[in-house]
Amino acid sequence: MEKCLFCEIAEKRIDSKIVYEDEKVVAFKDIYPQAPVHVLIIPKKHISGVTSLEEGDRELVGHMFIVSQQLAKDFSVYQCGFRLIVNSGPDAGQAVDHIHMHLLGGRTLQWPPG
Amino acid sequence: MEKCLFCEIAEKRIDSKIVYEDEKVVAFKDIYPQAPVHVLIIPKKHISGVTSLEEGDRELVGHMFIVSQQLAKDFSVYQCGFRLIVNSGPDAGQAVDHIHMHLLGGRTLQWPPG
Repeated sequence: MEKCLFCEIAEKRIDSKIVYEDEKVVAFKDIYPQAPVHVLIIPKKHISGVTSLEEGDRELVGHMFIVSQQLAKDFSVYQCGFRLIVNSGPDAGQAVDHIHMHLLGGRTLQWPPG
Repeated sequence: MEKCLFCEIAEKRIDSKIVYEDEKVVAFKDIYPQAPVHVLIIPKKHISGVTSLEEGDRELVGHMFIVSQQLAKDFSVYQCGFRLIVNSGPDAGQAVDHIHMHLLGGRTLQWPPG
């Protein structure tokens, strides 16, 4: 079975710029940043995407939002603003099959969001 | 005190195209759709934005993701893909101070997400 890239990052088998970690989630810098601040927040538990979430995962996903508050403070975008994005499937360009939340900030973000 | 637009929608004091409702959340069509499918998911409870979330709101926010699964099925974007977006503050263009999750789908979504 092929290893999941983001599981490997969470387990620190692959190098990344980790900016936050707790028991349940890890956050690290996106290697292809689309804004001055571009961080990915992932659960340590392997969940392949939004459509794989189970009812028991509610609290874990909600926790990713609480973590986004801390990251927004750490990267000084808490007041000026930031955007949270979760892609699901091909039309959204989900690139890794491990659920991840993009946090973008540090510039004016356009609308539509892609 | 000025009424919150999205609280008014949730209470059905203002007309909207509601596409989903349960005890905790309401979903309705965005009046300025940016894709063939563009729905907003909001909690009935007034929370002004991501930065106002409290630890006890984790399950509620996670529930919005579970609801997004149902909506993606209802609008036939579950397989082809969809994007979930939550804006916080001015740089992200948060337009209403009541936390809301955009669900976009039905076309190829570009990157960066705004």
